Amino acid sequence: MQLRTDLAIESTGIGEGHGIEREEIRKGNLTITRIKIKDEDTAKVIGKSAGDYITIESLPITDHFRDVQEEIEVIGREIGKLLPTKGEILVVGLGNTEITPDALGPQSMKYILATRHIKRELVHTAGLEKLRAVSVIAPGVLGQTGIEVSEIVTSLVKSIQPSAVIVIDALAARELSRLGCTIQISDTGISPGSGVGNRRKGISQEQVGVPVIAIGVPTVVEAMTLAYDLLGEQEIDREKVAPRGSGMIVTPREIDLLIERAAKLVGMAVNCAVQSEYDFDTLSALVS
Amino acid sequence: MQLRTDLAIESTGIGEGHGIEREEIRKGNLTITRIKIKDEDTAKVIGKSAGDYITIESLPITDHFRDVQEEIEVIGREIGKLLPTKGEILVVGLGNTEITPDALGPQSMKYILATRHIKRELVHTAGLEKLRAVSVIAPGVLGQTGIEVSEIVTSLVKSIQPSAVIVIDALAARELSRLGCTIQISDTGISPGSGVGNRRKGISQEQVGVPVIAIGVPTVVEAMTLAYDLLGEQEIDREKVAPRGSGMIVTPREIDLLIERAAKLVGMAVNCAVQSEYDFDTLSALVS
Amino acid sequence: MQLRTDLAIESTGIGEGHGIEREEIRKGNLTITRIKIKDEDTAKVIGKSAGDYITIESLPITDHFRDVQEEIEVIGREIGKLLPTKGEILVVGLGNTEITPDALGPQSMKYILATRHIKRELVHTAGLEKLRAVSVIAPGVLGQTGIEVSEIVTSLVKSIQPSAVIVIDALAARELSRLGCTIQISDTGISPGSGVGNRRKGISQEQVGVPVIAIGVPTVVEAMTLAYDLLGEQEIDREKVAPRGSGMIVTPREIDLLIERAAKLVGMAVNCAVQSEYDFDTLSALVS
Amino acid sequence: MQLRTDLAIESTGIGEGHGIEREEIRKGNLTITRIKIKDEDTAKVIGKSAGDYITIESLPITDHFRDVQEEIEVIGREIGKLLPTKGEILVVGLGNTEITPDALGPQSMKYILATRHIKRELVHTAGLEKLRAVSVIAPGVLGQTGIEVSEIVTSLVKSIQPSAVIVIDALAARELSRLGCTIQISDTGISPGSGVGNRRKGISQEQVGVPVIAIGVPTVVEAMTLAYDLLGEQEIDREKVAPRGSGMIVTPREIDLLIERAAKLVGMAVNCAVQSEYDFDTLSALVS
Repeated sequence: MQLRTDLAIESTGIGEGHGIEREEIRKGNLTITRIKIKDEDTAKVIGKSAGDYITIESLPITDHFRDVQEEIEVIGREIGKLLPTKGEILVVGLGNTEITPDALGPQSMKYILATRHIKRELVHTAGLEKLRAVSVIAPGVLGQTGIEVSEIVTSLVKSIQPSAVIVIDALAARELSRLGCTIQISDTGISPGSGVGNRRKGISQEQVGVPVIAIGVPTVVEAMTLAYDLLGEQEIDREKVAPRGSGMIVTPREIDLLIERAAKLVGMAVNCAVQSEYDFDTLSALVS
Repeated sequence: MQLRTDLAIESTGIGEGHGIEREEIRKGNLTITRIKIKDEDTAKVIGKSAGDYITIESLPITDHFRDVQEEIEVIGREIGKLLPTKGEILVVGLGNTEITPDALGPQSMKYILATRHIKRELVHTAGLEKLRAVSVIAPGVLGQTGIEVSEIVTSLVKSIQPSAVIVIDALAARELSRLGCTIQISDTGISPGSGVGNRRKGISQEQVGVPVIAIGVPTVVEAMTLAYDLLGEQEIDREKVAPRGSGMIVTPREIDLLIERAAKLVGMAVNCAVQSEYDFDTLSALVS
Repeated sequence: MQLRTDLAIESTGIGEGHGIEREEIRKGNLTITRIKIKDEDTAKVIGKSAGDYITIESLPITDHFRDVQEEIEVIGREIGKLLPTKGEILVVGLGNTEITPDALGPQSMKYILATRHIKRELVHTAGLEKLRAVSVIAPGVLGQTGIEVSEIVTSLVKSIQPSAVIVIDALAARELSRLGCTIQISDTGISPGSGVGNRRKGISQEQVGVPVIAIGVPTVVEAMTLAYDLLGEQEIDREKVAPRGSGMIVTPREIDLLIERAAKLVGMAVNCAVQSEYDFDTLSALVS
Repeated sequence: MQLRTDLAIESTGIGEGHGIEREEIRKGNLTITRIKIKDEDTAKVIGKSAGDYITIESLPITDHFRDVQEEIEVIGREIGKLLPTKGEILVVGLGNTEITPDALGPQSMKYILATRHIKRELVHTAGLEKLRAVSVIAPGVLGQTGIEVSEIVTSLVKSIQPSAVIVIDALAARELSRLGCTIQISDTGISPGSGVGNRRKGISQEQVGVPVIAIGVPTVVEAMTLAYDLLGEQEIDREKVAPRGSGMIVTPREIDLLIERAAKLVGMAVNCAVQSEYDFDTLSALVS
């Protein structure tokens, strides 16, 4: 597929077939699109796994008037709908902290409340007895660790036995206008080759044994994708767009700021989803 | 100018007119091109200041077999030719440390030996009596400081009275293949609007009162420039390339690594140029 | 002086002599102590410059129940009393970003609004016409730049002509209990040899030509000071406390967190002081 | 035990009993001390696990004339003696990247070659067919992840089945003169409560099922330990040394530099130990 995108909402054909359901609603500045890819045949045609994809589009992340709290709460509720109501949650931040556009996953870990280790008594005293047990890990990338992320996650799931895994990753989109202002949530896990980091293997319920909820924010468009999009049927001078076969990306100059804000947004939304007994302000105070 | 580039070697028309001299030599893996823009009329046509531009092209910065030492020494000699033989040197690292592709200038400061404050006696004891006095500053960017960089530099030049200023900045190129593997050295200073950071004002001998040597490495291609380059005469869908007027850039996924390596390369080359009485190994030991 | 401290409140003899005024008030969790060293003779005895020192003591910086907003506003008002009512302000963040306990000054720069460059028209449109012109610089330290900070500040003052300079620096205290929960504000500028960085030269009105307000937070106790304090008249085994003459410090294990929180506290307090036409929430929104 | 130290060489009683063997040799600037705690009874008295402890003392880490290469090779050989000759190795960097004196473990991961994922064919082409399979992980700390490090390591060992685990951690020493210039290597794993981070649980062969080699560099002395050491039998004013029960530490002002250099030293030494078929220069080139 030449117009590469990790977003279901951008996939060609979405919205047209009968193997697909699509619903769009607006909420203030937010547009929420629910796409269901209903069967494996349709999934094959579309090039995405079967399952539910929720896309939340917002104002640009650099916009000062963006109401972050409302957005976080809406995203949190959408994530919450995909989570099992009981049991521990394991949150995994994919990506490489040393590659800025790929660092969304590990950066968001800073904002997620790890609670699994907090002693019952302590929690009781502080009036936090309803905190759900959450563990949080940033496993690094294959090139750094020598271990497939899916292998690390599978090991931990066996040991911790969570009721679900949440995986956060930076995505590649097709349209530049989406960078930093779109969030995709899905119950399909991570596909092989997806993300800014092109993870070699996927992470799905099949592999790890429990449901895998994937949360992603597009941080780049591949240069080759932009070129295809601009040139349509015309031939592309590959040396111009990917000299020596290198993987060039298109991104806002303020990519560092985009990552920082998106990491906070996703991290806080995960807290809202998992700790649904507590409100935004309480969770904010616990994080900072 | 739609095909924006900060590199003289990429400017349309270079090499064709009679107001221009151009010479190209090869040295191992390096190609050195010397361009002289001889008069103001030619300068106007080309859209670059009159003066000397030396471009050194090398292997990609990610190449493990790149001989960095030889390259640093060659670059150092080219910088050295533009420096006055006597007097203090002030080195200025332009750019924003919080925007990765713009951080070349401040990052390179870490590798440059500041020597101006070292007491004569101390230096004598250590056998370093031939160290030339160098001062080093990373003044931040206008949005952070509220002060034009040219104003800071002009103030410091009045106070320190160096015989020349060296300014280091991250550049925008036209061709993706140049990112991280081209260095431009010139005696023209910095033009207004140049660099990844689009500095509002320039820094030149006219303003600061002493010669200004500019050293730059291209770290991005503007997305709009790539689009023009691909589409030629065809019309561009601006919303696709610069949504909401934003400044999208094209860069390698490994931009952090590119900046780190280029900063070290430029920093060490400046040391070699300024401290020409000492060899590479001595200077390396002093830096680390 | 063996029991080294940069805090006037800890200086031996403070509160006893007739050349000194001292007043202490409480405000919620805060204790504000105003010390005036009235003449040069007293100053000599005390070992601090003559002038006003305001110390604000609070709860530990790691305390979750600390009301940061109230504290910031109180500190802001104290700073404001020392500022001239008109003219531009230049804020200088002293210290070395690569030495964690010395990084308070540069870190706080991130939170201070630089406004000097914002065009009058723009400001008018946004309803921000009452923003006072502020410029902000982190000049690095002598070992990095080769330039005395006082020389950089003096040059900039000549060029920018502010009505006052605010200098922020990390301090050494005598008592460990003060680290991160005391702020000292004074109108005396910075003394030579003070701060975690032991700046070689001072920065005062005498040198730079305009009033210099110093703001500091203690981040370390020198190990030798702690040893003197514990041992009283007994002799100290210097090799145990300062092996090979090295400068050991005592600090909380969470020094990184202390610096981060103190930087935000001081930065926001400076905004409140300088932009006194705007309230805390407006200034917070402008910073983030 | 009031004079807390993680170094066997500093433990009271070491060298005196008959349950202990001790040997000391000198090699250029290095002093290598081998201590064997021979049985559990002695171990109990000493307060350290039974096993082998190798301590390598060097020049201060800030010393420019320190021959790092020789030191790395010597340390590498000592580590190598404790490793099984065959099978994969899992390297674990303990500690919190956001607490500078505790960041030795994760920082050293940057310098360790992860090779487990490199395809046999690729390795063959490059003449690197003798690279031993190594995987590398920085699992974070309990407060960040909610998961005991021992639980993560045990899970991974089950999945990866290495022949040994190497654990790297920052240590607390008794003597300030040792900070950054002592390395301890042992075959006993990590004891509960040890390290700058006071890890709650230990990591030993008993738990994870394979030999655990621990490598540590002291980066702090606890303030209370220094106080005990200075005051001997005298009573300590606890509020002075540990106000409000806080954990104060003594460390060099240049703690960031100490961590950076020690991380590189340990990381490269591990490479030399594990990849003993390759020399220092080859391994250096592969890392950078």
